[in-house]
Amino acid sequence: MVLPSKNNSEQVLSKMAVNFNSGEDSSYFLGWKAYNKDDNPHFHPYAEIEQNYNGVIQMGLAENQLSSDLIEEWIKRNPDAAICVEDGIKSIFRALFQDYHGLIEFRQLVARFMEKVRGGRVRFDSNLVLTAGATGANETIIFCTDNPGDAFLVPTPYYAAGDRDLKWRTRAEILPICHCSSNNFKITSKAKEAYEKAQSKYKAKKLDLNVKGLIMTNPSNPLGTTTLDRDTLKKISTFIDQKNIHLVCDEIYAATVFKAKTVSIADILLDDHVNQDLVHILYSLSKDLGLPGFRVVIVYSKDEMVVSAATKMSSFGLSSGLYIHTVIRLLQRLGECLVLPLSQTQNLLATMLSDKKFTWNYIKINRERLKRRYEMIINGLKKVGIECLKGNGGLFCWMNLSPFLEKPTKEGELDLWSSIVNEVKLNISPGSSCHCSNPGWFRVCFANMDESMAVQLAMQRLQNFVGEYVADNMEKKQQWKKSRLSLSFRRPSPLVRT
Amino acid sequence: MVLPSKNNSEQVLSKMAVNFNSGEDSSYFLGWKAYNKDDNPHFHPYAEIEQNYNGVIQMGLAENQLSSDLIEEWIKRNPDAAICVEDGIKSIFRALFQDYHGLIEFRQLVARFMEKVRGGRVRFDSNLVLTAGATGANETIIFCTDNPGDAFLVPTPYYAAGDRDLKWRTRAEILPICHCSSNNFKITSKAKEAYEKAQSKYKAKKLDLNVKGLIMTNPSNPLGTTTLDRDTLKKISTFIDQKNIHLVCDEIYAATVFKAKTVSIADILLDDHVNQDLVHILYSLSKDLGLPGFRVVIVYSKDEMVVSAATKMSSFGLSSGLYIHTVIRLLQRLGECLVLPLSQTQNLLATMLSDKKFTWNYIKINRERLKRRYEMIINGLKKVGIECLKGNGGLFCWMNLSPFLEKPTKEGELDLWSSIVNEVKLNISPGSSCHCSNPGWFRVCFANMDESMAVQLAMQRLQNFVGEYVADNMEKKQQWKKSRLSLSFRRPSPLVRT
Repeated sequence: MVLPSKNNSEQVLSKMAVNFNSGEDSSYFLGWKAYNKDDNPHFHPYAEIEQNYNGVIQMGLAENQLSSDLIEEWIKRNPDAAICVEDGIKSIFRALFQDYHGLIEFRQLVARFMEKVRGGRVRFDSNLVLTAGATGANETIIFCTDNPGDAFLVPTPYYAAGDRDLKWRTRAEILPICHCSSNNFKITSKAKEAYEKAQSKYKAKKLDLNVKGLIMTNPSNPLGTTTLDRDTLKKISTFIDQKNIHLVCDEIYAATVFKAKTVSIADILLDDHVNQDLVHILYSLSKDLGLPGFRVVIVYSKDEMVVSAATKMSSFGLSSGLYIHTVIRLLQRLGECLVLPLSQTQNLLATMLSDKKFTWNYIKINRERLKRRYEMIINGLKKVGIECLKGNGGLFCWMNLSPFLEKPTKEGELDLWSSIVNEVKLNISPGSSCHCSNPGWFRVCFANMDESMAVQLAMQRLQNFVGEYVADNMEKKQQWKKSRLSLSFRRPSPLVRT
Repeated sequence: MVLPSKNNSEQVLSKMAVNFNSGEDSSYFLGWKAYNKDDNPHFHPYAEIEQNYNGVIQMGLAENQLSSDLIEEWIKRNPDAAICVEDGIKSIFRALFQDYHGLIEFRQLVARFMEKVRGGRVRFDSNLVLTAGATGANETIIFCTDNPGDAFLVPTPYYAAGDRDLKWRTRAEILPICHCSSNNFKITSKAKEAYEKAQSKYKAKKLDLNVKGLIMTNPSNPLGTTTLDRDTLKKISTFIDQKNIHLVCDEIYAATVFKAKTVSIADILLDDHVNQDLVHILYSLSKDLGLPGFRVVIVYSKDEMVVSAATKMSSFGLSSGLYIHTVIRLLQRLGECLVLPLSQTQNLLATMLSDKKFTWNYIKINRERLKRRYEMIINGLKKVGIECLKGNGGLFCWMNLSPFLEKPTKEGELDLWSSIVNEVKLNISPGSSCHCSNPGWFRVCFANMDESMAVQLAMQRLQNFVGEYVADNMEKKQQWKKSRLSLSFRRPSPLVRT
């Protein structure tokens, strides 16, 4: 017998469980839900059934499939490193102690890789923390630095899941600093002044919040650009040092750049007299090596207390990647003990990272392929009259659909987005979900799609959409053009902030 | 150039990062650190080198290796279900959307397994949440129910990592309810009154805390017993209903019982008119099926808001198990779409759970083996004069070394523990790390060890320890016996509460 509940959830649950509306209920996640709906079939490039051709194309997923053939070939060439032989299966089921810190040899290889990716000038020690995914890594840094009443400055637009990752369970506050389309969303060398002003403003507002740090993502998700140059980074690091606040640098796309080089904060610290303990770097193998399956994300900090606390926190979500390290460690111990050869079955990642020729070649070829794909997308969009922010990194472009908005507002953007997901059948992420201050911008992921089918079909759909828009709205557009904004269909100009 | 840090960590970091002393720095974790020290070699049953024989034996790990041969044989008989064939390797690297909720078919199979384990009387719907490990699952339940200023009643002794899991990042408070050796640590049908009294006491103390719930573990870790009978559970569920507070039941050892049956709270709810939304169950495949590697832990709640929030929280630590489900889901979608056969490579767990003959046989044989091992250990201990609490479940026994304490205090217990780890070379967990109110009790894990070597050697070491103790302390013991407690070397009686 199942009794009805008394339905007093709102009284007895936490505010966290009941009232969270700022992240997972945003259009970014709603788009995913729409994509995953059973009555909204997905497009798959190899399906031959008719309705597949009308399925939603996934352009909301920042994953890189462009170079997975290289990984697969490497595994074929290195069968001994593959995780999957019979001995390996056995090991998975064996009792294993949980070593949160991960294998030292593996961490050393990750540190060397992080150096290489940043041009070989900086050194990382191997005292890094391995976490299960960037979601947990972001949260960990906030848990380590934030007390109740503290807040973090974050330039907008920022990653759509940022509120969930940074705010939700930590109860931290985010104080957005708006960057807008009139300046190509660029964080300039005036950032320091802007942040000082913001800090004063928030203090002046008596929000009773203590500004505890600044969180930056470089290259930017969702912009797809390297947002920070050396001069700006220098000023920012001086600013955080003077204010004695933290600087969190998310550099998970550091090597995923194709028309630029990422200037890492680590590079700036080399010759800048600031307190290194205040700077915390996030890195990952998911994007730069196209290995999301292993969920190896790194929290790098010079502050030993952060390293110690973050390591302990990693027990809240041990990744499969970490599990693999644990297995390696166990097998290695047994090996040392028994003079058995190291098991060849669980050390795939370590072996791959130590094959420097392969990893560097992967990054080089991957950059060329990303550049090619990026240009294919933006040229395709340009042809149908859609402009993008000039990009040079990441797995996405930042598309300006503001000329197609019925109303130049957030609501107008979400109406357009709803049409694009449900009628045009493309899952893209609206700028408002990234706290973009200008309506009409969308993040388009381009590296997770099959070229010959999905990319071509997506372009075709956008072309049809624009064609229909032109037919339907020519008159309205003309009126609007006169009354509201200088909209050019072929060459939309950046909108002023609304 | 690496600059020295300004070392102001304590000012700029969170209190959480700086001041956490109640969990990871406890002797439970210190024992693990001692075990992992490089100059303290581990014992391994198959090593032939001499120093191995002096290595520390791991008796602090609650993992079950007694029946892993059954799992390995099953995999051999079901090669198609194994995760590791070439196609499977490819899939791991493929871009995959992250479906936090897990495959519906898999969740259904888990729900059926949970029913079977609880005697087939109760029904679980498949709206369950998959989390990466019990650590994260415990934390998730607290995040879903606790607001700042809330506290949870927890009977002692409780799992040594409980403070970390339940309190650390949630900032919740734990109000311990002491159960002691004079009552064999049993939670009786008077629990309701005890908890009401505790609630009043804590309120009376004006701690400014709001009692928000009660957390129980059944079978108990560290006691190794089914602590709750039907009558007690009924009274407790009525109590929580009357008080409108939560009841969290950790039943991850539900089928890991060998001389008793676990009475699940789900069984009580069948015929008890209480608000089911207030009851939340934790379950896992790690213990009952001996599959810790997959880290599949379940949060089961009838409260839809808890399910929704907990599902979102699972993104902070996606397990390898979840990743596997995601892969199954993707492959299945492709399969549906393409009329390809379902990939046989990633569905190991689902296939295993649907083989009901195997899973039930596993549980049955595993129970017999656990019983045999348990009896071997307690009889071995009895022979050398060491008594244990009468156990019937779990992977550990609760050993009474109070007769061997120099001082009947926590400090005395930790002195003895230090000798046992560093001299006797056994990693066991002291009761004080589990908030046990009586000094001298230790948790001994017995299912992670090789029988012919590790168990025998551990018994031998304990025998030597007792022999040396007798030789060294005969005189002192006689004096102590007269002056303090009625200590019997051969038959130590339970200590009164100190």
